[in-house]
Amino acid sequence: MALLHGCETTVTTVTSTNPRTGDITHLAVREADAAAVDAAVAHAVAATARLSALDRYQRADLLAAVADALDANGDAIVAVADEETALGSPRLRGELTRTTYQLRFFAEVIREGSYVEATLDSAGDTPMGPRPDLRRMLVPLGPVAVYAASNFPLAFSVAGGDTAAALAAGCGVVVKAHPAHPRTSELVASTIASVADDAVTVVHGFDAGLALVAAKQVRAASFTGSLHGGRALADLAASRSEPIPFYGELGSINPVLISPAAAQARSAEIAAGLAASVALGGGQFCTKPGIALVPTGEAGDNLVRELGAALARVEPTPALTAGMASMFKTGVAARAGMAGVIPLVTGDAADGWTAPALLEVPDGELVGALSEECFGPLTIVARYGADAEAVRTISGLPNSLTATLFLEPNDATIPGARRALTERAGRILYNGYPTGVAVSWAQNHGGSWPSTNSIHTSVGASSIRRFLRPVAWQNAPQSELPLELQDDYVDIPRRMDGALTLPSAPVAM
Amino acid sequence: MALLHGCETTVTTVTSTNPRTGDITHLAVREADAAAVDAAVAHAVAATARLSALDRYQRADLLAAVADALDANGDAIVAVADEETALGSPRLRGELTRTTYQLRFFAEVIREGSYVEATLDSAGDTPMGPRPDLRRMLVPLGPVAVYAASNFPLAFSVAGGDTAAALAAGCGVVVKAHPAHPRTSELVASTIASVADDAVTVVHGFDAGLALVAAKQVRAASFTGSLHGGRALADLAASRSEPIPFYGELGSINPVLISPAAAQARSAEIAAGLAASVALGGGQFCTKPGIALVPTGEAGDNLVRELGAALARVEPTPALTAGMASMFKTGVAARAGMAGVIPLVTGDAADGWTAPALLEVPDGELVGALSEECFGPLTIVARYGADAEAVRTISGLPNSLTATLFLEPNDATIPGARRALTERAGRILYNGYPTGVAVSWAQNHGGSWPSTNSIHTSVGASSIRRFLRPVAWQNAPQSELPLELQDDYVDIPRRMDGALTLPSAPVAM
Repeated sequence: MALLHGCETTVTTVTSTNPRTGDITHLAVREADAAAVDAAVAHAVAATARLSALDRYQRADLLAAVADALDANGDAIVAVADEETALGSPRLRGELTRTTYQLRFFAEVIREGSYVEATLDSAGDTPMGPRPDLRRMLVPLGPVAVYAASNFPLAFSVAGGDTAAALAAGCGVVVKAHPAHPRTSELVASTIASVADDAVTVVHGFDAGLALVAAKQVRAASFTGSLHGGRALADLAASRSEPIPFYGELGSINPVLISPAAAQARSAEIAAGLAASVALGGGQFCTKPGIALVPTGEAGDNLVRELGAALARVEPTPALTAGMASMFKTGVAARAGMAGVIPLVTGDAADGWTAPALLEVPDGELVGALSEECFGPLTIVARYGADAEAVRTISGLPNSLTATLFLEPNDATIPGARRALTERAGRILYNGYPTGVAVSWAQNHGGSWPSTNSIHTSVGASSIRRFLRPVAWQNAPQSELPLELQDDYVDIPRRMDGALTLPSAPVAM
Repeated sequence: MALLHGCETTVTTVTSTNPRTGDITHLAVREADAAAVDAAVAHAVAATARLSALDRYQRADLLAAVADALDANGDAIVAVADEETALGSPRLRGELTRTTYQLRFFAEVIREGSYVEATLDSAGDTPMGPRPDLRRMLVPLGPVAVYAASNFPLAFSVAGGDTAAALAAGCGVVVKAHPAHPRTSELVASTIASVADDAVTVVHGFDAGLALVAAKQVRAASFTGSLHGGRALADLAASRSEPIPFYGELGSINPVLISPAAAQARSAEIAAGLAASVALGGGQFCTKPGIALVPTGEAGDNLVRELGAALARVEPTPALTAGMASMFKTGVAARAGMAGVIPLVTGDAADGWTAPALLEVPDGELVGALSEECFGPLTIVARYGADAEAVRTISGLPNSLTATLFLEPNDATIPGARRALTERAGRILYNGYPTGVAVSWAQNHGGSWPSTNSIHTSVGASSIRRFLRPVAWQNAPQSELPLELQDDYVDIPRRMDGALTLPSAPVAM
């Protein structure tokens, strides 16, 4: 193979595999070669010019039209996505709802208009001397490359949150489709194109993904996937002659800390909730709780026993791909064989399928792979006695998207562990389960490396900022200014000489 | 030397050179070795814990106290800075004013409180299903490494804008001092320490700078300097096992475009203003206009002649360092010798000194080094005839911090060139000069690579965001929430269920 590579032109058609049956479908499209990637980027350049020339209300209407078109085509989209992912119609119907909700939410965000951060400083004297008239706002960054995720064929894929945020910002998009759902990707892309022309272009293929992040006119890349793949793309983005921001959401262990009092009061309830969260969607969520810190003693023993019983009752499900099922089983087996690890539920399942697994580390010492994400329905119970033992366990963990605390009211126990845990996550949950990420103004789906590589979120209103750049205009004539910075514009919140002002007229919705 | 390196321990004392006399002073401090960098970072970790535990008003008071201490020690600071930089007391007194203004400005920014982006979404039903209570705000990122600039020994150095923004955010700082002004750096650091303990620690030495960006507990680095040096540090930041954001301000050509009508109406005025901007501070500003696009024809000829005459009248001044003077002269000579370049003012000066230089490219074709920054008082005039010729010239330019347009009222000429120019800059000026960067809410000092490597500004209120990260709290008890996210807090603007609300009580100032 190595010898052939480079000597022959390989035309690779895109294939789709049904995880339930293993059946393979050949698509009419091919993997994108260099010329096809160039053409896709050229579309995104043109789309950026078109989208950024629309006013905010026009762009919001376009997002809403995309949402409407997806809803109208929903039955077909869900059916194809189910064939490719085996996630089941109810879950995929919910994911489609989330996808169109995201698009409409970003329409609301850009109509409201705070996101441009309109800031006007009038000319005048300062202690530094005379100041010119300065007006600042955020403008579209330029064409964006979006790398779709395996585990959300709709909500983090062609029409997913990254795409919605980029379009809302005024940026054209090239999506590198995930090979686990190419037919869904094509169907969603054609649905978007039916109302939004070339705002979103899809490319397939591993090499196309590498070419895309290196393409000169691409101004940012966003990615949801593995630490390994994300790191490789991040390194390419950073090593360009003109580096671009790379927004990666790369992996997360999502620790859960249960206080002694909470275990005492609610072991059965917490065990049931945790089992459901671990098993949800075949454990294929970036927010799956991967580690549970459970107190030693009888209450903790009960919790672990009930958690194991609940997980053992879960039926096997097809993994998104046969490779992922295989990697999951290898990962579970490797961890189960490590010194000091007690396998409680082994997660046996047929090829291509997975079932929940539960491992226990009685002394709470999570070394090596035990502290790394294992994609699929595995969780590891780490036991702790005193606060200091939990602190020691937590200190060895990587940063995460989420950290979850189960506490009783006025529970003042384990203060050190609570502090250590909350410093390591972008979302801190109390008495809940981290799977399920609401799309809202206050959401944050990010965290320090490796959960994300940046100080940005990939879900929620502020994720739009990833695709904007600031510009200041100095002593500009009114006619040269964007609408939102002109003297008389009153539709959005603006900061005037340092004071935040609200719109003086109702925002048209 | 290569042989000795690695075989012996080199203890390097820090030296300071007087650019006017060449006299060398040995400081009592040494360049920081690995252990000293570790110690500095440990100080910054402790300082971050202390600063982030202060409330916003306490931190604002600390910034104001630092400003007061610098003002009180101003005579000594200006005197030492003048000995090391030869920038002259009036300029340095002005720079000190800017420095303390920046600190007080960030005190105002954090008292006002919008910068935390407090966002509260109440629990309730949504089309996606039930939503938990979610509350988001920005929190300190962690210890910050600041790389000081050569050309602003006060305002972009130990107590400069990056440090002010980081302290305001709640982050401890390690400053890598610039070797062109180590005594000033030490004096400013001790002045800060007199009121703020170990909030800022200074290290000296090239190797210390490399160790600092690699230090595990450093969470961000900010840099103002050359493209070459910045790129090296950016690559180190990106290649860490846990990559960190690198905020570089790396170089800028700052093109100026003069319309035919403006040249016709104001050639003398524009020539005088441009000459003053090029020569200001010995041309050692990142916003120095490096390229002027001037129309062909008599009005343009007059403008170029008057610009040359004005620049030729400027007396030589000492460069910040002898090396910079030498590099400047080499850079001017290399460009002057390129095909098609007409040297108009040659900028002759003694060793270690520089005088303004002016080159003309009659056909406007700026190839190779002609489109690269030459640090010092050089500007290049590129002539254009039709709009398309100016577009061609501009299309070959790198992105810049600033782009300047001279236009007459209702001037509809050269639309293509105007569009091409404004797409390439972070600040767009009309009928003004880019040197002089006001510190204000609306300022933007940044731009696409290489002017900066990011979508952030390094001057103005929003520069604080570089040193903050978002966190969301889900269903948190009141006692677990930061003050700004608690139910009853009314001192700052907050977004409540999507609607921006202003403080309900006057902000304590």
